[in-house]
Amino acid sequence: MQIEILRPSDLTPDVQNQVAALYRQLNPDNVQRALSEILVPQNNVIFVICKIDDAIVGTALLSTYKVISGYRGMVDDVVVDATQRGKGIGRRLMEKLLEEGKKTGLDEILLFTGHHRAPAIGLYTSMGFELRNSGLYSLKDF
Amino acid sequence: MQIEILRPSDLTPDVQNQVAALYRQLNPDNVQRALSEILVPQNNVIFVICKIDDAIVGTALLSTYKVISGYRGMVDDVVVDATQRGKGIGRRLMEKLLEEGKKTGLDEILLFTGHHRAPAIGLYTSMGFELRNSGLYSLKDF
Repeated sequence: MQIEILRPSDLTPDVQNQVAALYRQLNPDNVQRALSEILVPQNNVIFVICKIDDAIVGTALLSTYKVISGYRGMVDDVVVDATQRGKGIGRRLMEKLLEEGKKTGLDEILLFTGHHRAPAIGLYTSMGFELRNSGLYSLKDF
Repeated sequence: MQIEILRPSDLTPDVQNQVAALYRQLNPDNVQRALSEILVPQNNVIFVICKIDDAIVGTALLSTYKVISGYRGMVDDVVVDATQRGKGIGRRLMEKLLEEGKKTGLDEILLFTGHHRAPAIGLYTSMGFELRNSGLYSLKDF
C-alpha cells in the first residue's frame, strides 16, 4: 500500500477513469468534477491517493484557503474502495493530509460528515477532530 | 451604503486597521490574519466590504475551491459593526457574495454558524440556505 500525492503531471486518462469509478461507488448520481479541473495550479488542493499494485483504491483532498479568522484546510472526498475497507486506508489518507496541512502552516483543519456515518465519525474523532457546536448550511440555487 | 469588492490594490494601513478593529468586535481573542496574507492572487477569496461614508462597517468573504464532489464556496467572516446592525448590511453583503459566486460558476455555497446564533441563522435560511444533516468537525493541533 502506497500513500502518494497526486500532481498535475500524474494525470492520465487511466488515473481519471480509476478515480471516477472509485468515486461513483459513493453515489452514482453525485456531481463529479474532472481531475483536469481540480489539479490546476490556481486551485489550492492537496490531492492524496492510496495505491495497491498500481490500482487507486482511495482518495482524500484538502483544500486550503486564508480568511481573516485563520488559514484553513477543508477535507473532502475521503473515499476508499468498498473491497478494501477495514485495512486502515482511510486513516493513512487522513494522516497524510494532516502532515501536509502542517507543512502548509494551517491554523485549523475542518471537515463535515453525515451524522449517520458512524465509522467515519469514529475515525475522525480518534484522530482528534472535535464536533463543533455549529450547523452546516448549504445553498445550490443562487 | 456601498457594497464593494476589496482588491489587493485597495489595501492601505487604514483599511487594514479598520477591518482589524471591526473584527475584534466579534471576539478580541480570536486569531486574526493580516489582509496582506489574504488578498494575494494565489488565495481564491472574494472579499466584500460595506462602506458608509468611507468607514468600513461590514465584511464577508467567500473562499472558492474545486474538489471531486464539486466547485464550492465557503462563506467566512461575516461581520457587521455593532452600531450598524438592523440595517440589512449582512443581507447586502451575502447577496453580493452569492452574485459573485454565481459568476464564478460555483456548484454550491457552504457556511457554518453556531447553533445559538439565531439572527444569523434567520438571515441565511431566509436566503435559501438549508441546514445539512452533517456535523462540522475541527482539528487545531496536528
